[in-house]
Amino acid sequence: MRSAVKVEQLESFCMAAMRACGFSESDARTAADVLVTTDTWGIHSHGTKALRLYLRRVRAGGLKAAGRPRVIAEGPAWATVDGDNAVAMISACKGMETAMAKAEAAGIGYSAVRNSCHFGAAGYYAWMAARRDMIGISMSNSDPNMSVPGARWKVIGNNPLAFAAPAGEEKPILLDMALSAVAAGKVNAAAAMGKRIPDNWIADEEGAPTTDPSLYPLKACLLPMAGHKGYGLAMMVETLSAVLSGAGVLSQVMSWNLHDPSAPTGHGHAFIAVNVGAMMPVREFKDRVDRAIREIRAAPRARGSERICIPGEIEWGRRERALAEGMDLPEDVRASLRGLAEDLGMTLPDWLEETR
Amino acid sequence: MRSAVKVEQLESFCMAAMRACGFSESDARTAADVLVTTDTWGIHSHGTKALRLYLRRVRAGGLKAAGRPRVIAEGPAWATVDGDNAVAMISACKGMETAMAKAEAAGIGYSAVRNSCHFGAAGYYAWMAARRDMIGISMSNSDPNMSVPGARWKVIGNNPLAFAAPAGEEKPILLDMALSAVAAGKVNAAAAMGKRIPDNWIADEEGAPTTDPSLYPLKACLLPMAGHKGYGLAMMVETLSAVLSGAGVLSQVMSWNLHDPSAPTGHGHAFIAVNVGAMMPVREFKDRVDRAIREIRAAPRARGSERICIPGEIEWGRRERALAEGMDLPEDVRASLRGLAEDLGMTLPDWLEETR
Repeated sequence: MRSAVKVEQLESFCMAAMRACGFSESDARTAADVLVTTDTWGIHSHGTKALRLYLRRVRAGGLKAAGRPRVIAEGPAWATVDGDNAVAMISACKGMETAMAKAEAAGIGYSAVRNSCHFGAAGYYAWMAARRDMIGISMSNSDPNMSVPGARWKVIGNNPLAFAAPAGEEKPILLDMALSAVAAGKVNAAAAMGKRIPDNWIADEEGAPTTDPSLYPLKACLLPMAGHKGYGLAMMVETLSAVLSGAGVLSQVMSWNLHDPSAPTGHGHAFIAVNVGAMMPVREFKDRVDRAIREIRAAPRARGSERICIPGEIEWGRRERALAEGMDLPEDVRASLRGLAEDLGMTLPDWLEETR
Repeated sequence: MRSAVKVEQLESFCMAAMRACGFSESDARTAADVLVTTDTWGIHSHGTKALRLYLRRVRAGGLKAAGRPRVIAEGPAWATVDGDNAVAMISACKGMETAMAKAEAAGIGYSAVRNSCHFGAAGYYAWMAARRDMIGISMSNSDPNMSVPGARWKVIGNNPLAFAAPAGEEKPILLDMALSAVAAGKVNAAAAMGKRIPDNWIADEEGAPTTDPSLYPLKACLLPMAGHKGYGLAMMVETLSAVLSGAGVLSQVMSWNLHDPSAPTGHGHAFIAVNVGAMMPVREFKDRVDRAIREIRAAPRARGSERICIPGEIEWGRRERALAEGMDLPEDVRASLRGLAEDLGMTLPDWLEETR
């Protein structure tokens, strides 16, 4: 039987790996918190599983262990941050911190980050704002991996977009999504099980929708959620996070896991924080959020439905269990962490040992 | 044969109708420009067709002809606007003007509007920003007309969201969408033609997806675009436009066209303007937008596809033709305008006379 890993154990392991690659204690803690929190939400595709490849990029030179993200231009309610090719969790936290500092003074703050990389789960940064009684929005572009209506092949990234708002007695509202119909992981899972998929998930090399998941990713690409609507939102994210930040745009962005690890990827991000307390008593705002949540939750349910979930509710439930009982990490995550330990010559902790 | 109507003729007619209801010259011009511009984009469901019902609300007392939207609270980069139950085009223009004034000084500006109503096409207000070399985002809540995953019936509005960004030699990027899978108009059109619809457009009274469009709207309701993703975005819009503005939230919002016209509807809106020139030379930004547009347009096309459209491209093409040649308004719009003339005892202009 595999043993569950405690949140602190997973954090320590990730920090040790980053320290071994030359990260400062503080940067290692920042990035580990992003990745481990993402695992506690159950979004394992974007959690600690990715650390091995981030650190390969560090060792190959495409990312800097001691990169120092810094504000290179600013005004009363905005800032442009140069990520200095630090691991993107560090640049993105700096981006949202900067947006929140602006919002503290001006009511709303916007920061745009360039010279960054894959920032993991967008929701973490939006939640940073919600924890400080602010509304948070975070977004990033990515290398093109998605077709758009009329196109035959990849044109734009499935650019992630997240939103969080603080609640009172309820959990914060937390929306974290990519702008493709589904995440690549769902396509891969269907392929592994030999199943067909709905015809709006991916398109083949001719640009025609296909229900065969095994074509992905070499002979098929992702389709936008809701067709032209997802495409339009991807353009909005590209504009705010990359065009205006000075980052790579569209084909200028390289893949963090497929392309040359010795070269920067050129990702850009954008962060918006809205300081609730400047505009309305925080208690009143939270009461209003709680009422909205409860109204939705109490609505009549569809036949066969057990509950109506609020955005983030499933993730908060998983996190509560993870904090109380530890996590039973999926095997792909465990394999990646073992590979990371091997890459760096680290001793395997008990909870990570192979048990089959 | 019906004759095309010139843009100026349609504006004059709408202004005359509003003047007859007690609007100032300036307010009538503002609202007419919103509605007629929307028609020039070909979005006839949200253009002058709706004026008849807006003015019925004015005459019944739910909206005020002389309502004076005003800033009731503000800070360096934000403002709360009380719409004073003016016709919502006027409150929304005031909202975006206020956000732009804040962005002029602070780099980004946010305004939230309460005591408003149905504001028509969200894209108009986003475009106001793009015309001033800013990035614009506009959004509004609405009365609940959409189900969410797990629910049996209407829970939240299909809250519109729009985005616009200025380009250089290219047309501005313009995204204007509701967060339902499709607009109600498409369901009605399928019902009128006796066609079946895809199973992700509407759900029946049990909350089960149905392909029968004739059930809508009495025995079916809209479904969110992309399921939980559209639902999550609707929550984002509800939070920014209604929870934080002090407007009606969810079931507190009344329908502008179905409910008592003598009572306010309680809609809220939100507007964000980003002042490009504060962060990057405007020329450089526009060059970057142009390059992104051209890269997408030049991408390989899917089999059978004639072109890859940029968000807004179809609307800008229609507008160019409308400005040059006038518009051949659809019969439902013409009928509504004739009804409006009848309501107000106005003489029918030549272009509006029945010709069948």
